[in-house]
Amino acid sequence: MFKKVLIANRGEIAVRIIKACHELGISAVVVYSEADRDSLPVRLADEAYCIGQAQAKKSYLDIARIIETAKAAKADAIHPGYGFLSENADFADACANYHFTYIGASGEAIRHMGDKAMARSTMKRVGVPVIPGTEDVICDEDEARRTAEAIGYPVLIKATAGGGGKGMRIVEDSTELVKALRQASQEAERSFGNAGVYLEKYLSHSRHVEIQIMADNYGNVVYLGERDCSTQRRHQKVIEEAPSPVVSPDMRKKMGEAAVMAAKAVDYSGAGTVEFIVDDTGNFYFMEMNTRIQVEHPVTEMVTGTDLIKAQILVAAGEKLPWTQADIRMNGWAVECRINAEDPMHNFMPCPGKITRYTPPFGRGIRVDSAMYRGCVITPFYDSMIAKLIVWAPTRLEAIDKMEKALADFKIEGVTTNIPLQRKILMTEAFRCGQVNTNYLEEHLEEILNT
Amino acid sequence: MFKKVLIANRGEIAVRIIKACHELGISAVVVYSEADRDSLPVRLADEAYCIGQAQAKKSYLDIARIIETAKAAKADAIHPGYGFLSENADFADACANYHFTYIGASGEAIRHMGDKAMARSTMKRVGVPVIPGTEDVICDEDEARRTAEAIGYPVLIKATAGGGGKGMRIVEDSTELVKALRQASQEAERSFGNAGVYLEKYLSHSRHVEIQIMADNYGNVVYLGERDCSTQRRHQKVIEEAPSPVVSPDMRKKMGEAAVMAAKAVDYSGAGTVEFIVDDTGNFYFMEMNTRIQVEHPVTEMVTGTDLIKAQILVAAGEKLPWTQADIRMNGWAVECRINAEDPMHNFMPCPGKITRYTPPFGRGIRVDSAMYRGCVITPFYDSMIAKLIVWAPTRLEAIDKMEKALADFKIEGVTTNIPLQRKILMTEAFRCGQVNTNYLEEHLEEILNT
Repeated sequence: MFKKVLIANRGEIAVRIIKACHELGISAVVVYSEADRDSLPVRLADEAYCIGQAQAKKSYLDIARIIETAKAAKADAIHPGYGFLSENADFADACANYHFTYIGASGEAIRHMGDKAMARSTMKRVGVPVIPGTEDVICDEDEARRTAEAIGYPVLIKATAGGGGKGMRIVEDSTELVKALRQASQEAERSFGNAGVYLEKYLSHSRHVEIQIMADNYGNVVYLGERDCSTQRRHQKVIEEAPSPVVSPDMRKKMGEAAVMAAKAVDYSGAGTVEFIVDDTGNFYFMEMNTRIQVEHPVTEMVTGTDLIKAQILVAAGEKLPWTQADIRMNGWAVECRINAEDPMHNFMPCPGKITRYTPPFGRGIRVDSAMYRGCVITPFYDSMIAKLIVWAPTRLEAIDKMEKALADFKIEGVTTNIPLQRKILMTEAFRCGQVNTNYLEEHLEEILNT
Repeated sequence: MFKKVLIANRGEIAVRIIKACHELGISAVVVYSEADRDSLPVRLADEAYCIGQAQAKKSYLDIARIIETAKAAKADAIHPGYGFLSENADFADACANYHFTYIGASGEAIRHMGDKAMARSTMKRVGVPVIPGTEDVICDEDEARRTAEAIGYPVLIKATAGGGGKGMRIVEDSTELVKALRQASQEAERSFGNAGVYLEKYLSHSRHVEIQIMADNYGNVVYLGERDCSTQRRHQKVIEEAPSPVVSPDMRKKMGEAAVMAAKAVDYSGAGTVEFIVDDTGNFYFMEMNTRIQVEHPVTEMVTGTDLIKAQILVAAGEKLPWTQADIRMNGWAVECRINAEDPMHNFMPCPGKITRYTPPFGRGIRVDSAMYRGCVITPFYDSMIAKLIVWAPTRLEAIDKMEKALADFKIEGVTTNIPLQRKILMTEAFRCGQVNTNYLEEHLEEILNT
């Protein structure tokens, strides 16, 4: 087993990983930026090294500096968390080159799934349903036109190296197609240094359902059920839950087996998430695979009784998967609300500041993952998510009600948060009835904010 | 369903009940003593009424005042919590007489189980194993001597109205018997106004294993597995866990069915606990039944995924039990440490004071039940327990390790607590190996404190 793990991340996920390391008897080393000098991970870790300035490029994204620190600290392994370098194949390769175990997928698997057109084509090959669209990157505008006609408008142009909505265009009819293709391609070139784009049928008002998988280095892969992340704003998840209100046991099995096939197709190892779009008739289509742990992993932990971070560390250290598929049972319902320091009434403007009061909710079925404490400072340099509130209850409505109460009990002063908005979303009939699709929140935002 | 429940209690259990009421959409009313004016239950409740001075006799034990307050507040039901009036049959009767639903067992069932000799004889009648001893209250010293010889020394003299070790004597041989009988009887008369005593075989170095049961008003009773509370100091539980390391599935079933029989024998309704002594060969004997919710109920909730307080409220309101026996499954391992404001290095002297820092542990599998907040005052008037820390993990050793870390992360300043002692107990080989019996802690206290 590892003696020392370096955590190349910050905030709540760094705290989460430190705790998992300590539970396994492993020393935890964190790197931090100047802005995070007084942060909770720095306080909780066994060792902490400042690696640069606040801007992520000059610290959390500085591969050379992180590798150098891991050498100096004599770490055995590196955990990337989520965001930052967590899906950077070059970082995974650099870790391997310097003989650090990367706690995550191989550089090759990350690269394969990171190329959206390649991933799509591999999925199609192994029989995982994909959204109707082009076979590969578009070389030819005529072919694009023919494909678009064949699958039917609206279509979605996506960048093969894409992410975060960059290089993405919805095209409503053929007159817009060529212009949109050129714009998307240029944007992709500017954003990712890769002009490749491809076409898919645009499925609006669908749901985002993802399957958590875990794989070891010996070819064993299990799925841990699904998460429903349909409550989104601008492709950012706002509320996640497990299980999904639209997934039956039979569908779970089909999606789970498809996700396992996806993982096996790229010799996957570690924790991963296969994201699917589910249309209103229950058909599901591969969207992409995230080759890392995700923000919303706690809801899966709550309903399956597993510890995904520990499992990541164990399989990276060469252990076999701690469970077989038969060991994985879903029990009850879990919901997670992301708590952001932002002002929903002013276009979700980030709200940095000093936390003058911090009283998290507590008690039965309540979990808070956060790096906050009274007196800590939320800086403007990173993501505005400052806490995750996760609740568990035997049934979905009980979980929603428990979340509502827990949000009401969550006292944060010093920064504006989205807690009032989260409470309002939970009270909508659409959410309570499990009928939210990925367009719902944006289409009803004004109305919800004004309730 | 009730509209308003009055909580005749304080501290963490009042907070726990308020939350359960709110989750059920019920208004929560608390009564409080002058010492608890600034307490968390008073802040969280929908209504709060001061009912007298700090001494429990003048507030939390004042039946007339509590009934009067329930009338004034127009409450539908009264929850007694644990301690105080929770096993007072007169209080249950008074609630009924004034047409408040008492959230607990009937006065009759409380009275029946409260008379230890009567409970023992009823258990014997319905086939629940009892510790070898006298049939009934001792009338005659000769009979006592014959019984003691028959069951073999050492024997234990217990007061039929007993509790808290009063009227209890361990007798090592026949020369001490008569003197001890008289002393015990006098002490029982003084303490409880009832001189009745009876004899049992004294089982030292045994384990305390209790079965949680829940019954509705329609004769349905289920058991929710066991808790092991063998880590005790002077008959006070210090650490509790579920399941028990010495209970096999077969033994669980036998003990569970015995507990259900015990409950049915007194037409029990609500949450109750049947306490057993388990000897080192796995024989179990009825000790007593607690006719109320217990401090350690959260470990059962954690391994069974149930909400016992909500269930209490629902069955009191006339609903059927929310589960059948087949619905109750034990999953993983839960441990609870009682956090007391006391100084183990100075004979466990209570340590009241103002909480100047309060940072509870948080994260996956961690639950804190408490009424503390930064700035609150721990007064000398009540029990010194200020928080319960409960953890869950898939296996016992993982749960113990998680508890150890969580205790280390639990920062309480302003009062001395038993957290350092709890950490030391968790690190003993006896505890880690599941070999603690009810005498262990006292016999090894010096040694543990000095590690």
